[in-house]
Amino acid sequence: MTDTQTRSHSVAPALDPADGARALALDKQYVFHSWSAQAALQPLVVAGAAGCEVWDYDGTRWLDFSCQLVNTNIGHSHPRVVEAIQRQAAELATVAPSTANLARGEAAKRIVERAGEGFAKVFFTNGGADAIENAIRMARLTTGRDKVLSTYRSYHGNTGSAIVATGDWRRMPNEYATGHVHFFGPFLYRSEFHSETPEQETERALQHLRRTIQAEGPGTIAAILLESVPGTAGVLLPPPGYLEGVRALADEYGIMWIADEVMAGFGRTGDWFAWQSEALNPSRATPDLIAFAKGVNSGYVPAGGVIMSPRVAAEFDERVFPGGLTYSGHPLAMASIVASIDAMTEEGIIENAAMIGADHLGPGLRALAEKHPMIGEVRGLGVFWALDLVTDAGTREPVGPAVIGALKKELLARGVIPFAADNRIHVVPPCIVTPEQVATALEAYDAAFTAVATA
Amino acid sequence: MTDTQTRSHSVAPALDPADGARALALDKQYVFHSWSAQAALQPLVVAGAAGCEVWDYDGTRWLDFSCQLVNTNIGHSHPRVVEAIQRQAAELATVAPSTANLARGEAAKRIVERAGEGFAKVFFTNGGADAIENAIRMARLTTGRDKVLSTYRSYHGNTGSAIVATGDWRRMPNEYATGHVHFFGPFLYRSEFHSETPEQETERALQHLRRTIQAEGPGTIAAILLESVPGTAGVLLPPPGYLEGVRALADEYGIMWIADEVMAGFGRTGDWFAWQSEALNPSRATPDLIAFAKGVNSGYVPAGGVIMSPRVAAEFDERVFPGGLTYSGHPLAMASIVASIDAMTEEGIIENAAMIGADHLGPGLRALAEKHPMIGEVRGLGVFWALDLVTDAGTREPVGPAVIGALKKELLARGVIPFAADNRIHVVPPCIVTPEQVATALEAYDAAFTAVATA
Repeated sequence: MTDTQTRSHSVAPALDPADGARALALDKQYVFHSWSAQAALQPLVVAGAAGCEVWDYDGTRWLDFSCQLVNTNIGHSHPRVVEAIQRQAAELATVAPSTANLARGEAAKRIVERAGEGFAKVFFTNGGADAIENAIRMARLTTGRDKVLSTYRSYHGNTGSAIVATGDWRRMPNEYATGHVHFFGPFLYRSEFHSETPEQETERALQHLRRTIQAEGPGTIAAILLESVPGTAGVLLPPPGYLEGVRALADEYGIMWIADEVMAGFGRTGDWFAWQSEALNPSRATPDLIAFAKGVNSGYVPAGGVIMSPRVAAEFDERVFPGGLTYSGHPLAMASIVASIDAMTEEGIIENAAMIGADHLGPGLRALAEKHPMIGEVRGLGVFWALDLVTDAGTREPVGPAVIGALKKELLARGVIPFAADNRIHVVPPCIVTPEQVATALEAYDAAFTAVATA
Repeated sequence: MTDTQTRSHSVAPALDPADGARALALDKQYVFHSWSAQAALQPLVVAGAAGCEVWDYDGTRWLDFSCQLVNTNIGHSHPRVVEAIQRQAAELATVAPSTANLARGEAAKRIVERAGEGFAKVFFTNGGADAIENAIRMARLTTGRDKVLSTYRSYHGNTGSAIVATGDWRRMPNEYATGHVHFFGPFLYRSEFHSETPEQETERALQHLRRTIQAEGPGTIAAILLESVPGTAGVLLPPPGYLEGVRALADEYGIMWIADEVMAGFGRTGDWFAWQSEALNPSRATPDLIAFAKGVNSGYVPAGGVIMSPRVAAEFDERVFPGGLTYSGHPLAMASIVASIDAMTEEGIIENAAMIGADHLGPGLRALAEKHPMIGEVRGLGVFWALDLVTDAGTREPVGPAVIGALKKELLARGVIPFAADNRIHVVPPCIVTPEQVATALEAYDAAFTAVATA
């Protein structure tokens, strides 16, 4: 893949710093931001972006190793996706979900084919949160049961049920949905189960899940909802056998496994879906429902959805599915999905992500950890990595917000947009990233860690 | 406004009937549809659309008097909106919500200015449901109370809290959110309060709301959530004084009024927002929060949001707002909002909707009702009308699904895409509709009622 392939075909407009000042002033006066106290916000002003690069109105450029919110898997302004959006916008931007539409059918076909055997149909939504809402709805109605089990280390979206399925702090001010139970998933570096090996962590985490199911009552549980690789919680790769064990427990108790692939899917792990990863799930235990968004079209147009097994699809052949939305299968979003999946397939973008992880990011980040004692653990695969930062390698005490704030500042100053969460820096570039761009970014991470350690 | 103004500037591609057949086959195999049993669906295949017209791959054309799901207020393929999407797609389709972005600031400024005094900032979402979710969240956190009151005749969206706030049947299989209480709003034609005049209906409906507040406990109630004109429930115009009365009750008990303007807003009633309508709210009682979607950009790119009062905005200056989403303030959506609001303003599209209602649709539909006894009541304003169909003018017994099905078939055969709900046909063309197009459609409605009455 050459860098020109990933650039927009259109000529970039001239940048005017006055536009940047206006953007900032309007933002301050009129725009209310997600997950924030508003008064102290100092947002980065973004003017444009192409491939792995982002720039402001002063012409400053950064390598985007955040993918914004880990969604621009194909990079920014991919010409084939941009063209598809431009063409569809002129033809038919929006249409009622009750109609049939060629772009929608083509998108659904490609998604079901990537999910492979075990899947039949797609229900489209506007994003990840409402994908989770509808996956939960399908599991409840198909099983006739209510409860949904999910892990404490998770994020599933900001709407009514999705936010209560979420395990992290964002759930706490929003607990207005019923039927949600949380348990602990596997995470060897900070094990809840006092495990010392991955095999032990798998066995104990599955035993904990079995005990939770038994204690809640198996006949009350509709679904086990899991991010295949918990993302914002820290890129927590499931240890060997865990996903297979979840499948076996789900089968034993008649429960549906919902795979949340909103962040992990469509190339992030070097596979179409993380649950298909040879490294994470060699026997390819298969979920009943897959929720997706982000990488399906890199977020160029808001879109998400649920891929369902034939059993779930058939459940609603004669019975009304009580869910829906105005923009389900929105043609503009669908055209961007078709172009994005085709480009990822034909340009080897998934394979590039796998190669980058195995040959460049993995070794490079592990070398960084050798050098900087603050990096307690390096976890990941593909273009989905986390650096777990600690004050002490022995106690694994997490670093505080001041260290993370300093690292973010150092990285931005060195031309890299970082992704930070809790005590971690997540290294999550586009799937199209080149070895040269990885090398440039690794130098910036190296210098930033040195600067912060010696500050 | 000329018809050419509302057509796409691009040359329409040649239509191939084989594409229609492929769209239908793919749809059947891979696409799961909203609010439906899937087996018997026979979707209309839509190939393209411009202005008030929609066509299939065989070249059959229809006047779109449904606006799909009452969202294409500016008509299909408006050239200024299409161009804005094409330009923004090449520049920057998506960006993290934590950044600042010129298109987002310009969109927020225009929306706050249309809402007028009493409003400060906008929080952007992907659509109407998550706008409602976030408006409820803001009201709960600002008041420190939990309960949300909404009417039985309402629809507020398909996600966790929005669907339980909904009054109609779609709530019933989805009741997993807490803190929702339902009451009856005013609706003189089918009064819950045995009223005989609009004034009586207002007085009694407000008394019922007051009693509900008292019986639930005023100190427990965060919000009264109301569609300013309940839409899918039947275009139920609030009678004189009702909205003012709601404002007074909200003030008396320290409750927030959330106006759901997802369907009614951005031109549908001949105003920017229905609550601003001189006919519905002459003293301009002002809500605390406004939820919007659909008409803000006619759904060309999925988008919605919440407009908030200075009090709500200030509440989160120093306190973290616990809500957010990846595509909040999505540049592609924002560019389409800016272009759509500018075009609606400069081309007099809001004024056109008001004129069409007063001079053409209103008189035309009332003349139809004189002729066809099946039409029990004609309600509406602007381009937002319902025909309430009955088997008997005295008992007002609603017609059954067979009659509605027959009417839909007759209207499609006569070149009009209808919007049907329960026992009603809603007449909801784009705000750009011309008197000639209204006359053509009225002839089709007339013929369809004659055909069904004599069948």
